[in-house]
Amino acid sequence: KTIIKIGEAEIGGAEPAIIAGVCAVESREQTMITAQVVAEAGCKWFRGGAFKPRTSPYAFQGMHEEGLKILAEVRDTYGLKIVTEAIDEPALDLCEQYADVIQIGTRNMQNFSLLKRAGQARKPILLKRGMSSTLEEFLLAAEYVMAEGNYDVILCERGIRSFGSHSRFTPDLAVIPAAQKLSHLPIILDPSHSTGTRETVIPMARAGVAVGADGLLVDVHPYPERALCDGPQALLFDMFRQMVEEVRAIGQIVRKPA
Amino acid sequence: KTIIKIGEAEIGGAEPAIIAGVCAVESREQTMITAQVVAEAGCKWFRGGAFKPRTSPYAFQGMHEEGLKILAEVRDTYGLKIVTEAIDEPALDLCEQYADVIQIGTRNMQNFSLLKRAGQARKPILLKRGMSSTLEEFLLAAEYVMAEGNYDVILCERGIRSFGSHSRFTPDLAVIPAAQKLSHLPIILDPSHSTGTRETVIPMARAGVAVGADGLLVDVHPYPERALCDGPQALLFDMFRQMVEEVRAIGQIVRKPA
Amino acid sequence: KTIIKIGEAEIGGAEPAIIAGVCAVESREQTMITAQVVAEAGCKWFRGGAFKPRTSPYAFQGMHEEGLKILAEVRDTYGLKIVTEAIDEPALDLCEQYADVIQIGTRNMQNFSLLKRAGQARKPILLKRGMSSTLEEFLLAAEYVMAEGNYDVILCERGIRSFGSHSRFTPDLAVIPAAQKLSHLPIILDPSHSTGTRETVIPMARAGVAVGADGLLVDVHPYPERALCDGPQALLFDMFRQMVEEVRAIGQIVRKPA
Amino acid sequence: KTIIKIGEAEIGGAEPAIIAGVCAVESREQTMITAQVVAEAGCKWFRGGAFKPRTSPYAFQGMHEEGLKILAEVRDTYGLKIVTEAIDEPALDLCEQYADVIQIGTRNMQNFSLLKRAGQARKPILLKRGMSSTLEEFLLAAEYVMAEGNYDVILCERGIRSFGSHSRFTPDLAVIPAAQKLSHLPIILDPSHSTGTRETVIPMARAGVAVGADGLLVDVHPYPERALCDGPQALLFDMFRQMVEEVRAIGQIVRKPA
Repeated sequence: KTIIKIGEAEIGGAEPAIIAGVCAVESREQTMITAQVVAEAGCKWFRGGAFKPRTSPYAFQGMHEEGLKILAEVRDTYGLKIVTEAIDEPALDLCEQYADVIQIGTRNMQNFSLLKRAGQARKPILLKRGMSSTLEEFLLAAEYVMAEGNYDVILCERGIRSFGSHSRFTPDLAVIPAAQKLSHLPIILDPSHSTGTRETVIPMARAGVAVGADGLLVDVHPYPERALCDGPQALLFDMFRQMVEEVRAIGQIVRKPA
Repeated sequence: KTIIKIGEAEIGGAEPAIIAGVCAVESREQTMITAQVVAEAGCKWFRGGAFKPRTSPYAFQGMHEEGLKILAEVRDTYGLKIVTEAIDEPALDLCEQYADVIQIGTRNMQNFSLLKRAGQARKPILLKRGMSSTLEEFLLAAEYVMAEGNYDVILCERGIRSFGSHSRFTPDLAVIPAAQKLSHLPIILDPSHSTGTRETVIPMARAGVAVGADGLLVDVHPYPERALCDGPQALLFDMFRQMVEEVRAIGQIVRKPA
Repeated sequence: KTIIKIGEAEIGGAEPAIIAGVCAVESREQTMITAQVVAEAGCKWFRGGAFKPRTSPYAFQGMHEEGLKILAEVRDTYGLKIVTEAIDEPALDLCEQYADVIQIGTRNMQNFSLLKRAGQARKPILLKRGMSSTLEEFLLAAEYVMAEGNYDVILCERGIRSFGSHSRFTPDLAVIPAAQKLSHLPIILDPSHSTGTRETVIPMARAGVAVGADGLLVDVHPYPERALCDGPQALLFDMFRQMVEEVRAIGQIVRKPA
Repeated sequence: KTIIKIGEAEIGGAEPAIIAGVCAVESREQTMITAQVVAEAGCKWFRGGAFKPRTSPYAFQGMHEEGLKILAEVRDTYGLKIVTEAIDEPALDLCEQYADVIQIGTRNMQNFSLLKRAGQARKPILLKRGMSSTLEEFLLAAEYVMAEGNYDVILCERGIRSFGSHSRFTPDLAVIPAAQKLSHLPIILDPSHSTGTRETVIPMARAGVAVGADGLLVDVHPYPERALCDGPQALLFDMFRQMVEEVRAIGQIVRKPA
C-alpha cells in the first residue's frame, strides 16, 4: 500500500488523514482563522481553493495567485500541508510552486491533458472521482498520472449523481473497499461535497472512516452564511472539532495494525 | 423517536439492533446452526425468508409454511425474535401467525394493497426501500401502513440502483440521517443485499452504524457456496462474529445518550 | 413476432397501435367525451384507470367497479377495446370481467403473485416496465405471466428513473429495439408518464414510433387542469389529433412490410 | 432560433443536418473512402477525430496534425464541412486552422478553461453534453463559450449514464425539446456513442429526428471490425445510406415550415 508522506503528515498510514479547510480562499482573515482551528484540532493538512471550477461563468472563480500566497502563509504560520486545486495547466504551474498536494477536480477527472501534466509534477496528486465515473475509469484516470512517472496519487470519492434529492450527490462508500482491493493507492472521502448539507457531514465523515477510507476532505468556514462558494455544506468550528474527535475514535477501531 | 420493543429486544434503542440470519430458510439444519451462532454472539433478532420473491419464475421460491415452522423453532430454542418476509396477502396471513416482525420487500414497497394489509397486522413491519425510491416515496409507503393504524414500522435502506458494477447496488447511507430528520421511525441498513459481496459487508455494516443507523439486517450462512439464494453476500460465521464486535464498538461512540 | 388481435384491433401489426384515453376514469361524462374523440380519430383502443396506484394514501384511488362499468359503456358505444389496470388480485378478478386487456403497472412489475394471477387470466396483459428494471428483469417478469400459460403479453416502456429534472422520467427508447431483438413480444411506449409534460408528449410519441415501437399508450383529457391524476401530462383534444396524424405518417416510413 | 450556416451547409435549418464520418481518422484511405460515401449520400458535413480522448492512457490517441491534414483534403476533394474535436488548448489552436466546426467532447463539457478558449475561436463550437450533466449545467457550459463572444454553439445530446446494459449509454431524447424550449441554440443527437451498437443506430437516428433534433452526428466505417476506436457502433455504408433516406423522410413530416 502506498503511503503519501510529507514530513510528519501521512495519508494512507495508521491514522485517518483529515484534510480540512475552506472550500474557496476568500480572504486572508477567513483563511487564517480557519487554519488556526484546523491546526489546534491536531490536523496536519489544510485545503483551500484558489482556482474554482464553477458551473456558471458568472460565479466567483477564485483569488488565483493571491489565494495561493495566503495558503503559503498558512503553511508558514501553522505548519499545515497545503492541498489546492489546479483547474488547467497554467494553474497547475502555479500550484506546483505554492502547494504540497495538487488536486484535480471531479469535472477534470477525464481531462487527459491535465492528467498528463499532473503526472509530470513533483508533487502528490489528489484525484477526485468523476460524478458518474465507474471504478475502472477512475483507476485509469490515475493511470494517466502514473504513466508519466508520478506514483503519488490519492484517490477521493466525492459522491455520484443519482436520482435522490435528499443529498446533493450520493456518497458511494462501497467504492472505497472496492478500490482498495484493486489498487495500492490510498483513497479518501469528501463528505462535504457528496452530501451538500452541514448536518449530514459529520455522520458521513464517521461512515467514511468506518468503511475504511484513508482520510477525509472537509469544508469548514468561520461564517458559512457569507461564503462565496458552497456555504451550506461547510462545518462550523464546533462541529468540526466534534467530527475530529468522533472520527479518531472510529479510526482506532477500524485501522488496527494488521 | 419510536422504539420497537419485543421483550428485551429493541430497534431504535441505545444499541444498534443486529438482525442476522439466513437469506432463505433452506433446511432445518442450515437454519438452526446459523441461529445458534447468532444467539451466541448476543444478538436478539433472527432473519430468515420462507417466501422468496425471485426475479426468475424458475428460481427457488422458498419453503413456505414449512420454513415458518423452522423459524418458530428458532424462537423456541434460542429466544431470538423472528423477522420474515411476506410477499403477498396469503403469505402475510401466515407470517402473522409465526413471526415477530413482518418484512415487506423492496419490490413490494409500492404494492399498496399489501401495505394496507400490513397496516392491519398486529405485528411490527420492516419496510425495505424500493431500489429507486425517493425518500418521499419511501415515507409515503410507510404512511400506507400507518394510515391503517399500525405505527410500528421499521425503515430499511437496502441500496439503490446506479451505474456502477463494483457493488450490486449502491448503499445510500445519506438517506439514513435524512430519514431521521423527517420521521420518528427507526431506520436500519442491509449491508448484504446492498453490496452483494461478502468482503464488503463488514465495512458497510460499520459505516451503517457510524452514520447513525438504528440497526443492521445481515445475511449469514454456514456454507454459502451451496446457498440457494444470494450466497456470495452471506457472511461466514467468523466474519459475522468480527462484524458484531466492531459494530458494537462503533455504536458506543455514535449512540451516546443525548 | 406475436401480434395481439382482438377483432380488428391489433398490437404488433402493420400499423402502430394507439391506446389513448384518460389516466383515471373520473366521471362518465369525462370518459365518454374523451372516448368519442379517440374513436373519431380512428383509434381502436381506449385506456382508462379504475384502480389507481397512488404514491400517497391520501390521493384519489379510482372509481373501482363503477369506473369499470363506464369503460364497458365506452366499448358498447364506440367499439373501442378497453385497457385498464389491475392493482391486486381482487381488482384483477373484476378487470377480467369488464376489460379487453389488463394492465400491470410499473410499481407491480415484480409483484410476482399478481403476475402469476395475470398468467391465469384469459385476457392479454399489458406489462409496464419497472422504473429501474433492467431489460432482463423486465423479460423475466413477462416470463412469470407466460409460465402460467398466458402468452399474450404486451411490453410497455414508461421511462426510467434518472438524475435529470427536465422530464419526470427518462424515456429509454433504446430498450425498444433491444427488447425486440430478444423477445417475440410486442413493445409499446408510454410518452405521457415517461415525460410528464404535455408539450413533450407529441415529440416523444413520434420518436417512439420512429424507433420502432409497436404502439403508444397516451393520456388525453377534456379539461386537464381539473384532472384528479396526472393532469399536466394529458394531451388536449387538438394536440391528440395532431399526434395521431404525425405518428401515422412516421409509421408508414418505419413499418414497411419486410 | 440560431442557424449555423457555412456556405450552403446548415445546422438548425429546414432539413436535419447529418454530420457523418469516421470516429477516428486512422488513415488517408479509410477517411477518403468514407467521405466519398457521405458526400454521395448528399450530406454536407464530415466528422473525423484527430485527437481522441481515451479512457485508457494505453489506447490509440489519434493521428493529431497529420489527421487534420487528411480532413482538410476531405474538404478540398468533396466540399464537405469538417467537424473535429479539440481535447485541449494546443489541439484547439490546430483545429481552428483546419476545421469548420470545433467539437468539445463530453468529458470536457466542464473543462471551463477549454470552453473559454473555444469562446475566443472564430469557428462554431459543437458542445457535447456531459454524461451526467443536467440541462442547466449543459446550457451554462454553452454560456461559458458565448460569454467570450462566440454565439455559434451547437448542442449535442450523446447519452447519459444509467443502470442498464442493453445500450452503452441511455440516449436522453427528452432533453431535446426541453433544450429547445429554453435556448435558441440548435441541438443534435449522436445516435452512435449513445447506443454503442450498430443495429440500434438507425432506429435511434430516426427517433432523434422525430423528436425534433436539428441533426445527427453519426459514425461510419468502411471495415469497422478493424477500427481503432468504437468499431461496434460504426454503420456500414449500406446501413448509412438507408439511415439517410429514412431520416430525410421523417424530417419532412416533423420539420414543417411554421
